[in-house]
Amino acid sequence: MNDSEARTDLKHLKVPGDFPGHFLAGTLFLIMALWWSTKSILKHVCKQQKRSSSLITKEFFFRAELLEGIVIIGMASIGIIGLYCTLKIHQFSDKESKLTLILHWHHLSMYVFFAILGGTKILCFIISSLPVSLVKLTLSSAFFVEAFIFYNHTHGRSVVDTFGHQLLSFDVFLAGLVAFIEFLTKNNVVLELLRSSLTMLQGMWFYQMAFVLYPKNRDHAWDLSDHSNIMFLTICFCLYYALTYAIIGINYALITWLVKWRLSKLCTSETQLLKNHEQQEESEDEM
Amino acid sequence: MNDSEARTDLKHLKVPGDFPGHFLAGTLFLIMALWWSTKSILKHVCKQQKRSSSLITKEFFFRAELLEGIVIIGMASIGIIGLYCTLKIHQFSDKESKLTLILHWHHLSMYVFFAILGGTKILCFIISSLPVSLVKLTLSSAFFVEAFIFYNHTHGRSVVDTFGHQLLSFDVFLAGLVAFIEFLTKNNVVLELLRSSLTMLQGMWFYQMAFVLYPKNRDHAWDLSDHSNIMFLTICFCLYYALTYAIIGINYALITWLVKWRLSKLCTSETQLLKNHEQQEESEDEM
Amino acid sequence: MNDSEARTDLKHLKVPGDFPGHFLAGTLFLIMALWWSTKSILKHVCKQQKRSSSLITKEFFFRAELLEGIVIIGMASIGIIGLYCTLKIHQFSDKESKLTLILHWHHLSMYVFFAILGGTKILCFIISSLPVSLVKLTLSSAFFVEAFIFYNHTHGRSVVDTFGHQLLSFDVFLAGLVAFIEFLTKNNVVLELLRSSLTMLQGMWFYQMAFVLYPKNRDHAWDLSDHSNIMFLTICFCLYYALTYAIIGINYALITWLVKWRLSKLCTSETQLLKNHEQQEESEDEM
Amino acid sequence: MNDSEARTDLKHLKVPGDFPGHFLAGTLFLIMALWWSTKSILKHVCKQQKRSSSLITKEFFFRAELLEGIVIIGMASIGIIGLYCTLKIHQFSDKESKLTLILHWHHLSMYVFFAILGGTKILCFIISSLPVSLVKLTLSSAFFVEAFIFYNHTHGRSVVDTFGHQLLSFDVFLAGLVAFIEFLTKNNVVLELLRSSLTMLQGMWFYQMAFVLYPKNRDHAWDLSDHSNIMFLTICFCLYYALTYAIIGINYALITWLVKWRLSKLCTSETQLLKNHEQQEESEDEM
Repeated sequence: MNDSEARTDLKHLKVPGDFPGHFLAGTLFLIMALWWSTKSILKHVCKQQKRSSSLITKEFFFRAELLEGIVIIGMASIGIIGLYCTLKIHQFSDKESKLTLILHWHHLSMYVFFAILGGTKILCFIISSLPVSLVKLTLSSAFFVEAFIFYNHTHGRSVVDTFGHQLLSFDVFLAGLVAFIEFLTKNNVVLELLRSSLTMLQGMWFYQMAFVLYPKNRDHAWDLSDHSNIMFLTICFCLYYALTYAIIGINYALITWLVKWRLSKLCTSETQLLKNHEQQEESEDEM
Repeated sequence: MNDSEARTDLKHLKVPGDFPGHFLAGTLFLIMALWWSTKSILKHVCKQQKRSSSLITKEFFFRAELLEGIVIIGMASIGIIGLYCTLKIHQFSDKESKLTLILHWHHLSMYVFFAILGGTKILCFIISSLPVSLVKLTLSSAFFVEAFIFYNHTHGRSVVDTFGHQLLSFDVFLAGLVAFIEFLTKNNVVLELLRSSLTMLQGMWFYQMAFVLYPKNRDHAWDLSDHSNIMFLTICFCLYYALTYAIIGINYALITWLVKWRLSKLCTSETQLLKNHEQQEESEDEM
Repeated sequence: MNDSEARTDLKHLKVPGDFPGHFLAGTLFLIMALWWSTKSILKHVCKQQKRSSSLITKEFFFRAELLEGIVIIGMASIGIIGLYCTLKIHQFSDKESKLTLILHWHHLSMYVFFAILGGTKILCFIISSLPVSLVKLTLSSAFFVEAFIFYNHTHGRSVVDTFGHQLLSFDVFLAGLVAFIEFLTKNNVVLELLRSSLTMLQGMWFYQMAFVLYPKNRDHAWDLSDHSNIMFLTICFCLYYALTYAIIGINYALITWLVKWRLSKLCTSETQLLKNHEQQEESEDEM
Repeated sequence: MNDSEARTDLKHLKVPGDFPGHFLAGTLFLIMALWWSTKSILKHVCKQQKRSSSLITKEFFFRAELLEGIVIIGMASIGIIGLYCTLKIHQFSDKESKLTLILHWHHLSMYVFFAILGGTKILCFIISSLPVSLVKLTLSSAFFVEAFIFYNHTHGRSVVDTFGHQLLSFDVFLAGLVAFIEFLTKNNVVLELLRSSLTMLQGMWFYQMAFVLYPKNRDHAWDLSDHSNIMFLTICFCLYYALTYAIIGINYALITWLVKWRLSKLCTSETQLLKNHEQQEESEDEM
């Protein structure tokens, strides 16, 4: 009884702050997943089409990794600042304040680990003596920490709310596991895509939770204590996962087509350049 | 009390539809498992008997994979259409309708993932640039999704019913795990047979559940709340698993014998052909 | 209350049959573990000492595997016959009879899987086309099935009894896991010794359970509902495990010493033989 | 009620003995983790800087391993002796005595396994025929046993106390898992650092538990039955983990800098020596 009261109070209070919070997190993860899948597919396609080195150089991937690191640190910073602002703006009563503070610290811990991920990414590509697999490890540990926190995040929540967070935790745990397997077995494009799809599912699930927990129209709000809603969420989870497969498939088709199209366009000018270059080399040899 | 009431209502209602449903699913999985084990054994035997390439060409396996993809999509479509029909025919009361709808959506999600599996199979063997290990991944994810759904499928059911579904979920999870390990370590015939045996067990378990939950003779129906029935189901599960070993063993013996018999029959005509061919080549060389 | 009553009845009844049953199973597993560790150490030592091929030939290991297969089948048969006899001798009341029958079928399922293991062992070493890793797989599945059954074996038992069976199930599961890892990564002597130590622990635990559950002196019987006994069993489990390390270590030292001693003894006669053999060969060459 | 009473009694009694106990264990694990990370980083840096063999020889690592083995045995002995002394000094009532004895035996089992680890370390580096991977296995089994015992250590404790021990058990389990993966995949510096960080986290967590359970100032003691304290401990756990990353990062930077500095200093004298050596060799050749 006390729990459910506390929850209602919490909900009453958190609605303004948390729909955007979940929505923002979902959007960030969706963008990250799309970028990861694009990067993996691009690498895979480039490896198969040997001439593609004229189109996309190793330099490009190097810079992309650096940029990714900076962006991840940026995102984490925005998250931390956002938490700080929410805390400043709202005035809480004493007990609410304590619980809200703890929940905010939960989010903070996640952001800290994503900041570490970003930092490691930058350091690994600047300092060549660092092992590159470190990035995968920090990625997997960031996911594991996130899963761990979401798992311990659900005290005093309703059945459906708890289940939603558990599914999120489960998904993030799987993403961390895939990242850890990637860390052990290097360069497997299918594993990278699997991780992307799980991250994408995470983004979608943040959206879903935002709409379930903080409905815009209070009249059509979900009954958070109805068990059949749990069974319905299970279906959503699976169908969203099927959706990520479709999105990554379309992404794959698009990128393959784009690379082939650019290559065929570049081909004539390239052979021209190559001929010129060879002539130059020959003349140099003669000299 | 409410749960058990709901269940009785449900059972009252679902009996016509669900015995065939479970039976059909079981049959499909049994056929799939038999075909998978046959394929794996055939590949293994052909690798050992080097002359067997005259008997079974790579072309044959290629076409078999394509056909398998089409058949799996067909099965999934039949399942989806079957669900749709059952929904149309029966008239449900309001609350029953909601729960039945959700259970149907559960089955739908599974069928969707098997359809994705079939689609991936076809695409991977048509488009050569796609990594073949993708098929194993979609297979394992189809199994994982199935296990996940069966695990969340048991709300408001009796003890024995729940346990039966949990065992099913456990078995399907193991099959998914084996498929995932196959995805990581390629070309291990024993793992493929292990997956076949787990799939076969799944088929048998669908049969068992059909007979336990929807008995033809109502007088000899199982007591679904008796704990000793759980202990009995445990035994069945293990002995069925032993049975799958026996079936696959017999299958192995049969196929090995068949291939050797065909090879010995073909041998004379083959050597004849080879000689002719060599003579031709020699005459070509002379030319 | 009903549970505990049923248990007391059971205990009253099973005491004559079950102390020997647990004791026998424990002895069989201890012997098996000792033999496995001896075999692994012998193989490892022979690989290092290259001259040892004169002492222990491949033929020896081949025959040892065959014999092991036959012995395992024999053990399983004894178990099955033993179950049958116990069933015949005792007269049970109706309800007791049902539960006892189910518990006997539980044991039967385990024996069946060990019989399969023995059969596979024999077949794999007779028919060369069968993959040898099949033996490891059937071994791991035999352990997994045993763990699964022990986990579902504890209905209506006291706290300490249940905990003891859970620890057993846990240990057997670990042994199965190690066997499965062996199946994936071939020829790792340390893994084989780990499996031996877990099997040995299993044997010791059967002994411990026999003494805990069926004490000879009824006055010093354990209080099966006292939680501090659980904490004490935890300690026993760990210290027994440390004991298996010591036993395997002593075994290793003994075998290494024995092989070296035999080699040094054989050395002179061997060089003699070798010289003779070489002379023969030379004379043959001359001829 | 009875449980909580028992706990209060226990706490009353154990306060003098256990703050130092937890503090000592934490310090030992922190030192071990720092040493492990230093060793791993040193090996990694030495592998990259090829001239470093003049600075740190294989002999050095060999002796370090030996010393580590002796120190671990020493630590375990201190622990065992410490337990014995605590037992002698305090006078317990009968029931308290039994529980305290069991808890002491729990600690003893852990120390025994760490003593085994130390012994294996020494034996593996003295006897060359023993497989080196044995050390990793005993390490992982020491951690697993520790995790297992902590998991079964929490009977009759308050919510927060239990949760703290569960987190400890979880962390130790992860460390054991990483050690086991190291055992399977040899020579991965990142895995070694991961294990160090988890061990360091373990040390920190011992400190944290010491301060939570045995506060110096009784007025600011934690409320051990407040659920929000659990959520707070979750945060601490994650942030400590982030801290271990920072410490290991700083350690890495320091060691790299130190090795480079020493190498640049040694360089001139070394080249001098090398020249002298070469001249000697040349003169020997001439002779």
